[in-house]
Amino acid sequence: MKLATYKDGSRDGQLVVVARDLSVAHYATGIAHRLQQVLDDWNFLSPQLQDLYDALNRSRDSGSGASLARNAFPFDPRQCMAPLPRAYQWVNGSAYRSPQAPPDPGGKGSSPALYQGASDDFWGPCDAVPCASEANGIDFEAEVAVITGDVRLGASPAQALDGVRLLLLANALCLRQLLPGEMAQGFGPLQSCPNTAFSPVAVTTDEVGAAWAQGRLDLTLQSGWNGRTVGLCEAGTDMRFHFGQLIAHLCQTRRLRAGAIIGAGAVSNLDASHGYSCIADKRARETLQDGTPLSEFMKFGDTIRIEMKGRDGQSVFGAIEQEIVPLELATAQL
Amino acid sequence: MKLATYKDGSRDGQLVVVARDLSVAHYATGIAHRLQQVLDDWNFLSPQLQDLYDALNRSRDSGSGASLARNAFPFDPRQCMAPLPRAYQWVNGSAYRSPQAPPDPGGKGSSPALYQGASDDFWGPCDAVPCASEANGIDFEAEVAVITGDVRLGASPAQALDGVRLLLLANALCLRQLLPGEMAQGFGPLQSCPNTAFSPVAVTTDEVGAAWAQGRLDLTLQSGWNGRTVGLCEAGTDMRFHFGQLIAHLCQTRRLRAGAIIGAGAVSNLDASHGYSCIADKRARETLQDGTPLSEFMKFGDTIRIEMKGRDGQSVFGAIEQEIVPLELATAQL
Repeated sequence: MKLATYKDGSRDGQLVVVARDLSVAHYATGIAHRLQQVLDDWNFLSPQLQDLYDALNRSRDSGSGASLARNAFPFDPRQCMAPLPRAYQWVNGSAYRSPQAPPDPGGKGSSPALYQGASDDFWGPCDAVPCASEANGIDFEAEVAVITGDVRLGASPAQALDGVRLLLLANALCLRQLLPGEMAQGFGPLQSCPNTAFSPVAVTTDEVGAAWAQGRLDLTLQSGWNGRTVGLCEAGTDMRFHFGQLIAHLCQTRRLRAGAIIGAGAVSNLDASHGYSCIADKRARETLQDGTPLSEFMKFGDTIRIEMKGRDGQSVFGAIEQEIVPLELATAQL
Repeated sequence: MKLATYKDGSRDGQLVVVARDLSVAHYATGIAHRLQQVLDDWNFLSPQLQDLYDALNRSRDSGSGASLARNAFPFDPRQCMAPLPRAYQWVNGSAYRSPQAPPDPGGKGSSPALYQGASDDFWGPCDAVPCASEANGIDFEAEVAVITGDVRLGASPAQALDGVRLLLLANALCLRQLLPGEMAQGFGPLQSCPNTAFSPVAVTTDEVGAAWAQGRLDLTLQSGWNGRTVGLCEAGTDMRFHFGQLIAHLCQTRRLRAGAIIGAGAVSNLDASHGYSCIADKRARETLQDGTPLSEFMKFGDTIRIEMKGRDGQSVFGAIEQEIVPLELATAQL
């Protein structure tokens, strides 16, 4: 099933069920108001949402279900908050083989690089990205992420994978000029990774069929920067650590509670012909080739579009479509 | 006023108002079920809680308010979850001058060291601390923390201080042997800082009177390890960055949303006679003096007690009292 959260002026929005083709939606009122409630009580609530989802798809296909059709409305991604507008945990990582050599002090690459990110203020898929200064090195990071249920302390990668409830896309804003100083200090990204946007809908793994395999999502992540396709990266190909391994790494000293969101970092392929899912990867390739990065980071007015098609050619999650704006033009988000 | 969250089998517990002397409590039902609700709508809900708090204190003092007294019950910290059992943000820092030289790559110490911590699974003040292995270097960190309301992007330290809603104590579990590797990788503490416990009650700043001054809490933090007092550290004295500065640092590239918890790190004094609020500080002093750390970290069965008295000699927050237990004895928390 496909779930989204509609803006209603509140901090958490309203849960809606979205038809498979993303054409119409239906409020989940009567089942749950918020996605976190569903994650807290998944076994009880998700079957009820699934029934609503199935009925919504049937009424699209056959025209049956007059009452349902009457209460459904055209789905508009611009009305979406992030599926979880705020969450109790957002952990982002660097799970791909990428031209940016990840720090690997052990020398064996045996351990994924993950950091705790800010989860109190996610952006909707079409929300503007307010930035204080272009000089901070504004970069997008097009990612695949998962939302988990409870995962126990010491879970194996296979057990951790059982905890995956939903898949979604993310755009993790990164201020590249602030990152090296924070990394050098050792405490991890803070000012440099201020906010993350998520796709219009989050989906259960059955929505992508066999493309969800062994903790990886074997589909192509499309990134468009100012209307030009810059990345067609294979999300499953060069993922060194799959989602079960990422979650198990987190769970080595603690349990994970329902509603945690885990991102695998900008999707990257060793084969450069796939393009890039963050400008830093492009700059790293330029540095390897020419000794210096040539590409500039994003400017005010720049746009980024992130989408992923299923094997049927349809958009799985809807598109993230954001514009970089100076602070003073984004008062609603300050 | 003083607020706590009682265990009721749910993930978020039940909000209770606690009398100033911590003797009795009263469910806040009818005003709010959860502390996060109050923080989300502080101006509307906090005056109602304050009225209940005032009435509860009056009924203690004068015996008046029969109905209130009938519904009040003895306050038991062992029934407490953390005031926010899960939160949308927990940022911990290192705001004190301490014998552990904090990394300061800029060389000027002009910027506080803060990291995003895990906030999806806080412990109650008397919950056991389940640990996989003593070899991880089990350490307590006795801290002062604040819970904020909304704070805008770009807030000054003074504006950020206006966002402080509640004060509380924290015990941030640190697995010292895992920390250096994670710091070296640059992504910050993850496995090494798995969970944090908080004091039985969180209090509004008026509860400590003039001791809350210029973003610092000028009271003594008492730490007792296995029943022996090891720290009587002045929380206001050697705090290089006050809470307004810590929050403003966070808000340089993003806003902060209601319910964020900010910790200032283990309370530390340059004057070693005050003792210590984490074993790492003691070991750092030993290393400076003898070339090597002599003290061992905590063992299974060890206890830690953290408390702070007001200028009237009364416990402000109640005490954190935890025992380190092997995983297999803490199944309820796994």
